[in-house]
Amino acid sequence: MAPHRPIEYREAAPEVRAVFDDIKRTRQVEDVNNFWKYLAHDPATLKRTWESIKEVMAPGALDVLTKEMVYLAVSVTNGCGYCIASHGAAARKAGMSEAMFAELMAVVGMANETNRLANGYRVPIDPAFEK
Amino acid sequence: MAPHRPIEYREAAPEVRAVFDDIKRTRQVEDVNNFWKYLAHDPATLKRTWESIKEVMAPGALDVLTKEMVYLAVSVTNGCGYCIASHGAAARKAGMSEAMFAELMAVVGMANETNRLANGYRVPIDPAFEK
Amino acid sequence: MAPHRPIEYREAAPEVRAVFDDIKRTRQVEDVNNFWKYLAHDPATLKRTWESIKEVMAPGALDVLTKEMVYLAVSVTNGCGYCIASHGAAARKAGMSEAMFAELMAVVGMANETNRLANGYRVPIDPAFEK
Amino acid sequence: MAPHRPIEYREAAPEVRAVFDDIKRTRQVEDVNNFWKYLAHDPATLKRTWESIKEVMAPGALDVLTKEMVYLAVSVTNGCGYCIASHGAAARKAGMSEAMFAELMAVVGMANETNRLANGYRVPIDPAFEK
Amino acid sequence: MAPHRPIEYREAAPEVRAVFDDIKRTRQVEDVNNFWKYLAHDPATLKRTWESIKEVMAPGALDVLTKEMVYLAVSVTNGCGYCIASHGAAARKAGMSEAMFAELMAVVGMANETNRLANGYRVPIDPAFEK
Amino acid sequence: MAPHRPIEYREAAPEVRAVFDDIKRTRQVEDVNNFWKYLAHDPATLKRTWESIKEVMAPGALDVLTKEMVYLAVSVTNGCGYCIASHGAAARKAGMSEAMFAELMAVVGMANETNRLANGYRVPIDPAFEK
Repeated sequence: MAPHRPIEYREAAPEVRAVFDDIKRTRQVEDVNNFWKYLAHDPATLKRTWESIKEVMAPGALDVLTKEMVYLAVSVTNGCGYCIASHGAAARKAGMSEAMFAELMAVVGMANETNRLANGYRVPIDPAFEK
Repeated sequence: MAPHRPIEYREAAPEVRAVFDDIKRTRQVEDVNNFWKYLAHDPATLKRTWESIKEVMAPGALDVLTKEMVYLAVSVTNGCGYCIASHGAAARKAGMSEAMFAELMAVVGMANETNRLANGYRVPIDPAFEK
Repeated sequence: MAPHRPIEYREAAPEVRAVFDDIKRTRQVEDVNNFWKYLAHDPATLKRTWESIKEVMAPGALDVLTKEMVYLAVSVTNGCGYCIASHGAAARKAGMSEAMFAELMAVVGMANETNRLANGYRVPIDPAFEK
Repeated sequence: MAPHRPIEYREAAPEVRAVFDDIKRTRQVEDVNNFWKYLAHDPATLKRTWESIKEVMAPGALDVLTKEMVYLAVSVTNGCGYCIASHGAAARKAGMSEAMFAELMAVVGMANETNRLANGYRVPIDPAFEK
Repeated sequence: MAPHRPIEYREAAPEVRAVFDDIKRTRQVEDVNNFWKYLAHDPATLKRTWESIKEVMAPGALDVLTKEMVYLAVSVTNGCGYCIASHGAAARKAGMSEAMFAELMAVVGMANETNRLANGYRVPIDPAFEK
Repeated sequence: MAPHRPIEYREAAPEVRAVFDDIKRTRQVEDVNNFWKYLAHDPATLKRTWESIKEVMAPGALDVLTKEMVYLAVSVTNGCGYCIASHGAAARKAGMSEAMFAELMAVVGMANETNRLANGYRVPIDPAFEK
């Protein structure tokens, strides 16, 4: 199937524009990322996904920087090229320094390694973790 | 193949005991987790993995709590049951509250969702993320 | 290692041509996709994979469109770029509308999200699902 | 960390009860699954996830059975034990016969196989899939 | 959905018995593993999968031990508990020593780690690997 | 975030040069791969990762060729494009013939398929594999 193309603001339907406007306002940006321009082909998913992201990524018990670094860690684990680029940018914007990025990658690497060591040695859960 | 069994301190070779001792000292615990007792079947991997973990998980540009939450996020993404239990415990010990855990899971869930939306819509990386 | 190159019909060995001919006849296409031209480097795997695909993707209790959408859902989950493009095209050819694609992606996204929520909260299987 | 425990209706806060009530009404069931009883530890995620699932899984361009089978295909690919059990049950309830289940598994298996063959042979996307 | 139950030889249909007989003869075993007893619910997939496995796992340019260790490496990476147990047993039977297992796990662990470091640092492919 | 750029030998800090020198000496190559030039942004991870790789990939109970093929198998399963290219080259250099590559891919494909069939049919581990 032909790849989708991005839907730009000027050609977007009112319900798509409303979401784009809210993204731009919330994030203080001039334009939305490609992710949203592609999701715009499905206005219901665009709206639902944005509202979920807006709620989940707002500062709460965890700050925005921590949340963006976790998002990046998951994207690196899954090998999602687009998400690594976009959430790398978002984490950087939220304050991730080069040193923090380096430590984050080191942790993600070790976690992926030891996850497999635990699988391979079929390690049973310690009773202490169950209570 | 028969599952491995844990190697306990009292029966461990000196090189294994040396690692167990360092884990107990570093983490201020009375005994090591099953993960280390199983890795003890390969003293070289036990030593290398512990030294890597000790270096990577030490506080630096990121604090210990953030690192443990990232470890948990990766383990949940990979579906490693042992690692979810053990790093859930470690994150809790490092200060993760119930509210932080809930937000962490929400972020991990959304990241796994949008990673696939980006894959499915074949979203190209924005030029702005490349410079 | 240098990437493989596609093996075209005109240069293919008879056993490869026989598979290419069967693919073209079965799918009513003028040429086979790159996937088959690359697998042609291993005629045994080419033949086995094509015969398995032919059997598995034939209409049965599930129709071809449903099967192609499931194939696409798996490919999106795994992040296989080639497979997303080729099975997106195949699903479209089998009748997947833009609205069906949009709902498919929404389901794939939610499933990837809730799979991790279930992992993270370590939800035990309900007894009702076991009988 | 100690595993969470399920939150039952009788002990649930009003906002959790409201979601449980809507799940029971929508699905015509007497009680909600463990998944929801565990998510109830985070009422915001419980509500958001349920509302998203309710919207995404409603019949539309795809019927409920197709959606549940796709959900199962993703869960099998990810190896989420809980989700395989719960969405296997849901697909069965929506009309998946034993023959449909068997064909679904066959497709999921082949897709996971050929995803890796495409990765390993580094197959480039056919120009025909790009237009 | 209720879990499937294993189909034993004595109750199996003739086409299932024929596959079971061939597995027992080829592998010189008294009974087949649970994997085959469950796949027996779909005789077509049982037959196709066994014939593919028989062809792929036969000694060729790679010996049986190497193939079983690769199978185990993939299963550990994917976190498939059943497959780790069954292919661990098969590799052991094919001659995998404890020392080989330990080195195999070390390689699998490192590969999973560096795969993510390459993802995270977005490392471009060296021109030398393309020719 | 802007992608990282490779750090070349001539501009590298002494601690990075020391690692580059050891890689070049150990592997008898004129220059290091991009992977190391990117990791050089974090000298501690560069050093730790190289020392781990050097130890794990040295010939032992498994020879170098087997280890490189396992590395490739994991990378193909995870869909890491860089790693497939670099470890494909390394395996080829260590003696992997075209026929060995073809059989390796066939095994990786089947393992990924049957991992999901085992998941989907929820196959319990045979008691024989536990003792």
